[in-house]
Amino acid sequence: MGFRDLWDEIAPIGRDPDSLGYLRYAFTQPEAHLRAWFREQAAQRHLILEEDGNGNLFAWWGAGDDAVLTGSHFDSVPHGGAYDGPLGVVSALLAVDELRARGVTPVKPIAIGVFAEEEGSRFGLACLGSRLLTGAVDAEAAAALRDRDGVTLAEAMGATPKGHRPDLLARFGCFVELHVEQGRSLVESERAVGVASAIWPHGRWRLDFTGEANHAGTTLMADRHDPMLTFAYTVLAANKEARLRGCHATIGRVAVEPNATNAIPARVSAWLDARAATTSAVDELVAAVSARASERAARDGTRVSLTAESVSGETQFDVALRDRIAALLQGAPVLPTGAGHDAGVLSAYLPTAMLFVRNPTGVSHSPAEFAADADCAAGVRALADVLEELSCR
Amino acid sequence: MGFRDLWDEIAPIGRDPDSLGYLRYAFTQPEAHLRAWFREQAAQRHLILEEDGNGNLFAWWGAGDDAVLTGSHFDSVPHGGAYDGPLGVVSALLAVDELRARGVTPVKPIAIGVFAEEEGSRFGLACLGSRLLTGAVDAEAAAALRDRDGVTLAEAMGATPKGHRPDLLARFGCFVELHVEQGRSLVESERAVGVASAIWPHGRWRLDFTGEANHAGTTLMADRHDPMLTFAYTVLAANKEARLRGCHATIGRVAVEPNATNAIPARVSAWLDARAATTSAVDELVAAVSARASERAARDGTRVSLTAESVSGETQFDVALRDRIAALLQGAPVLPTGAGHDAGVLSAYLPTAMLFVRNPTGVSHSPAEFAADADCAAGVRALADVLEELSCR
Repeated sequence: MGFRDLWDEIAPIGRDPDSLGYLRYAFTQPEAHLRAWFREQAAQRHLILEEDGNGNLFAWWGAGDDAVLTGSHFDSVPHGGAYDGPLGVVSALLAVDELRARGVTPVKPIAIGVFAEEEGSRFGLACLGSRLLTGAVDAEAAAALRDRDGVTLAEAMGATPKGHRPDLLARFGCFVELHVEQGRSLVESERAVGVASAIWPHGRWRLDFTGEANHAGTTLMADRHDPMLTFAYTVLAANKEARLRGCHATIGRVAVEPNATNAIPARVSAWLDARAATTSAVDELVAAVSARASERAARDGTRVSLTAESVSGETQFDVALRDRIAALLQGAPVLPTGAGHDAGVLSAYLPTAMLFVRNPTGVSHSPAEFAADADCAAGVRALADVLEELSCR
Repeated sequence: MGFRDLWDEIAPIGRDPDSLGYLRYAFTQPEAHLRAWFREQAAQRHLILEEDGNGNLFAWWGAGDDAVLTGSHFDSVPHGGAYDGPLGVVSALLAVDELRARGVTPVKPIAIGVFAEEEGSRFGLACLGSRLLTGAVDAEAAAALRDRDGVTLAEAMGATPKGHRPDLLARFGCFVELHVEQGRSLVESERAVGVASAIWPHGRWRLDFTGEANHAGTTLMADRHDPMLTFAYTVLAANKEARLRGCHATIGRVAVEPNATNAIPARVSAWLDARAATTSAVDELVAAVSARASERAARDGTRVSLTAESVSGETQFDVALRDRIAALLQGAPVLPTGAGHDAGVLSAYLPTAMLFVRNPTGVSHSPAEFAADADCAAGVRALADVLEELSCR
């Protein structure tokens, strides 16, 4: 079965007919549909399915320790693209097919992982499944996380997550995650597949701007304490500070109370996504944005508070593994990324690497995210090469 | 029955226990509860209830033409105050009690109106009930208006609104709406009750900012087309233009797509509420905001479009009626307001006046909205005086 045949099976699942983007939130119907499809695919390949009690699935080819783990996630950001996550899962299934077609008999087991809530789009904490598995997040705390409708993770899962699974982790020797590139480095280097060097330090901070709700028509401009103004100033300040410092800052999520046309808001909450090449650069960026927000709040007669929701330091992938893979793939380009991944979480526990597949638009987290079928097929062959190398020697 | 006794009966209905604000949207359960309460109050007073097929209720004391109409609305803005609307309905019921206690026998009928969706918080069009009754909005067009969940007005009402009711309108000789003041003029003049002179011209415009959704982590700042920046600039520009011109501009409602922490938005929609002393000042303000938004969009590589959702010209209340009432109330202060009201809509069809009751905070559309019981009782007496004057002569 070729890439397109398998890909077409999941293409309609969770797709919004208007935006053509995907609404594949963790533990919702579309994601459950994808998981059921994965179980069926695993069964067809006689892979043994294992659940870890944290929402993560593993399909095993062979048993035992020192396994080579691959895979990625199904969940999407709101109206996200088709490739971010699912490409790594589908490519892993096809790489198993490829190894069998080659007549390869691995010495070590191979496992395909499907991680839960990688995007954090539902419960606000990115890489939730891998963080639970590795104990990087406390299971009780995670169980109480709520989505925008007030549903807890435990309710969505139907059980409290098991949390740290050192027994399961101990069976993995290494992890290789294949992912669509979220930039245009591979376009520039004219290669279909690359290897990750590092993940930029990054984090999410919530900014709560509070003022005084009042009538939009009757309240004198001079009498207002309008948090929308402080918020708007902070959006522009974050953009300016990031540009000046060569960092990335984004405010893409906002919640307004009461959010009525004829009411000055009581509160505006906004989430700052900040990333940079070093942890200190991220910290300095966030401090600068916070300082400028506070200055403006003093002028507007409002208040602002900053809360760190998730912060990740720099992830330097295993250098030996990276070099071994790059050499195997005929000197594939080695590139950093500004995006977080389950590979970033797992790299703290076992040797981890990432493969990137060329994305001609460079766009991701959007329906414009794309990879050509020929490049996806090249990705499958590259992943098969890597799995063969790592499982047979 | 005193003001506080009757007031306490409705105080808990639709109140949010966290914000202490009210969620009394048109045709939802809390508002239906209030309407049922009103029917019961009308029945206790032997008032005859009439529905107009547009969601408006009228409780009649006496029958015939040249009726004196009073009343207001029950619906609230999200997390609004207790007084905006309900004070006018409760005061009307108590004014009837007061007239009966005085032994007054009106020559003309008195009707207490409860108007639907005055705030426009659910279907986006303020004074929807009075606009339907007067034919100021087309019934078919209104029936298709949708709330944020996609429910149409016709679905919420359970029927297509009847629209223009010239037969019913013809039975009213004048309208007097009592309302909490949404400012501090009466505090300054040390009076409990005032009379309205005019409503400022005002309107709502939707601004749609569109850009390109992309990954917050991986997209270079220089490659972005981020509509949040254009929106933020426009918020600050609207504030600045309004201050410079002595007008009111507010952006209190925002919708972001996809509204994810790690995605540059594809679209930000924002609603501009603009008000000024003259129609030309409103027009010039909106044009200036639109021009500055467009300039910024060109810099951000985004697009912006402006759509008028509802626009009202200046309302000058009936001068003879106003002066008669002010004289009756021992020279009550005469003041303009920046807020729209059903009285503004009806004033185009029959002589209309408004009474304002002192609000020590000056705040409205917020839980901080307030009127002292003694001032509310003074409002009831003033309304009874006005109803007696208008219905007996």
